[in-house]
Amino acid sequence: MDSVTLEDTTLRDGLQSEKIELTVEDKVSLFEMLVNAGVRRIQVGSFVHPGIVPQMADIEELIRQVKAPPEVRLSALVLNSRGLDRALKCGMKHMNLSVSASDTHSRKNVNRSFEKARSEMIALTKQAVSHGMAVQAGVQCAFGCVYEGAIPEEHVLTTLQYLSEAGAGELYLADTSGMAHPRQITRMVEQVHHHLPGETLSLHLHDTRGLGLANIIAGYEAGVRGFDVSTGGLGGCPFVKGAAGNVPTEDAVNLFARMGVDTGIRISGLCRIVEWLESRLGRTLPGRMCRVLQHGALCD
Amino acid sequence: MDSVTLEDTTLRDGLQSEKIELTVEDKVSLFEMLVNAGVRRIQVGSFVHPGIVPQMADIEELIRQVKAPPEVRLSALVLNSRGLDRALKCGMKHMNLSVSASDTHSRKNVNRSFEKARSEMIALTKQAVSHGMAVQAGVQCAFGCVYEGAIPEEHVLTTLQYLSEAGAGELYLADTSGMAHPRQITRMVEQVHHHLPGETLSLHLHDTRGLGLANIIAGYEAGVRGFDVSTGGLGGCPFVKGAAGNVPTEDAVNLFARMGVDTGIRISGLCRIVEWLESRLGRTLPGRMCRVLQHGALCD
Repeated sequence: MDSVTLEDTTLRDGLQSEKIELTVEDKVSLFEMLVNAGVRRIQVGSFVHPGIVPQMADIEELIRQVKAPPEVRLSALVLNSRGLDRALKCGMKHMNLSVSASDTHSRKNVNRSFEKARSEMIALTKQAVSHGMAVQAGVQCAFGCVYEGAIPEEHVLTTLQYLSEAGAGELYLADTSGMAHPRQITRMVEQVHHHLPGETLSLHLHDTRGLGLANIIAGYEAGVRGFDVSTGGLGGCPFVKGAAGNVPTEDAVNLFARMGVDTGIRISGLCRIVEWLESRLGRTLPGRMCRVLQHGALCD
Repeated sequence: MDSVTLEDTTLRDGLQSEKIELTVEDKVSLFEMLVNAGVRRIQVGSFVHPGIVPQMADIEELIRQVKAPPEVRLSALVLNSRGLDRALKCGMKHMNLSVSASDTHSRKNVNRSFEKARSEMIALTKQAVSHGMAVQAGVQCAFGCVYEGAIPEEHVLTTLQYLSEAGAGELYLADTSGMAHPRQITRMVEQVHHHLPGETLSLHLHDTRGLGLANIIAGYEAGVRGFDVSTGGLGGCPFVKGAAGNVPTEDAVNLFARMGVDTGIRISGLCRIVEWLESRLGRTLPGRMCRVLQHGALCD
């Protein structure tokens, strides 16, 4: 039986723009529910300035409190040396970072040009690796940008190459604004495999235009075996309805189950998390399988 | 440029289980907005007993009032001889009917066994064709059933064959409970093309598990060029959250536009319909592209 690895981003990409701040206890509960559902890779948060992302202010405390079984891998987003220091002090062994291939998006998002941000992330990768950190490095807006439209594939490929050469052990492509379509995923994955043979590549797909699952399938068929997902599809900005989170973890698990591909994750456990999140956040999340399980045979 | 035909079911499958009844004037407006958006095939409703589906009680009046340009094709669902008489009296030239390949679902849905329902629909097809009606005939639960699980492919294929032999000029496969996955779509479409070469086949896909667009792509790649869709994704039952409508028309248009496939439909026109429907029905619909257009460049 073939298998894929789903990395849950609920605690990081999912929560980062939530207005309602969860307590550390809530986050520990969420982490434990993810582990109990069978999730084996969990993004726990970001080492960013608490003034910029208040939801991530308690990441040190969260990491201190969670009891991760040895088979569960924690990672966190790091943006600079200061964040790296904090991550190392917490004993983190895995981190992720990214560069936006869109210059406009890069300036809006991190106040730096694409070139400058890339140089910094290459340097940060080297620094992190020199401290024994495993780095997963990615390219945002890899399939298009709402500001710039099409993004040159060459920007994406060379950026991945530089990050790989700097020591990133895993690479990823992010569809930041959910603009990718399946044929584009297929082509880009083939390009990466051709230009960077042997690299481990995963996909971080936002579901803004409803194509997340279709794009996961295209990635899988092209050989990708790692995907970022968010329970309930939590993510985007709650005040910008058009924005959407990563593909719902439970819907990705259902897809792979239907295709006979093992994820090691139980949908029922994820649906308990969706119900829990919905009660905490006071709104319905976009994931489908929780609704299907709640209403069972009526769903025809 | 390749093209596909999207048949909008908002007025039929979309509205049929809505508690809030739209007036005939509202439905005429909806029809006209669909035409203005570029939709060329529209399901206007069902000739069923008004006591069973009150939303469809005014179908004769609706058909009398709409002014369809010659390039727009109207069709309606017909379930029996009495419905056929009504459709013929309205001057309808196209109708659709279906048989559920799941015996349990057939008994729950139309109070008849699979075999009995199939015999009746074969007879109804013959009767309709003898009156000059063009019949599109389909198989419900073609990809699985929430009550019975897997459905034998043979039931699906032989049913399509009998309906074709009875005179149905177009055939369709319906994923009634949204259980299909793309590989299953590919296999089943290939089977139909193999066993019934030359038949026109379309897909009617519910988005219950979020796989509607992925399944449309699989169908397209396997050669299907006709898909049922519902503006905003309207459909399912508003009181059973797990149920979902057909794939949102605007999201399917976006998908095909991204793939360079022509639908002849403008997303902006559909999004006006979504906003109009949401104000009439008092709730947000699941389609994504209306949100994307409303929030434009913020969606990253």
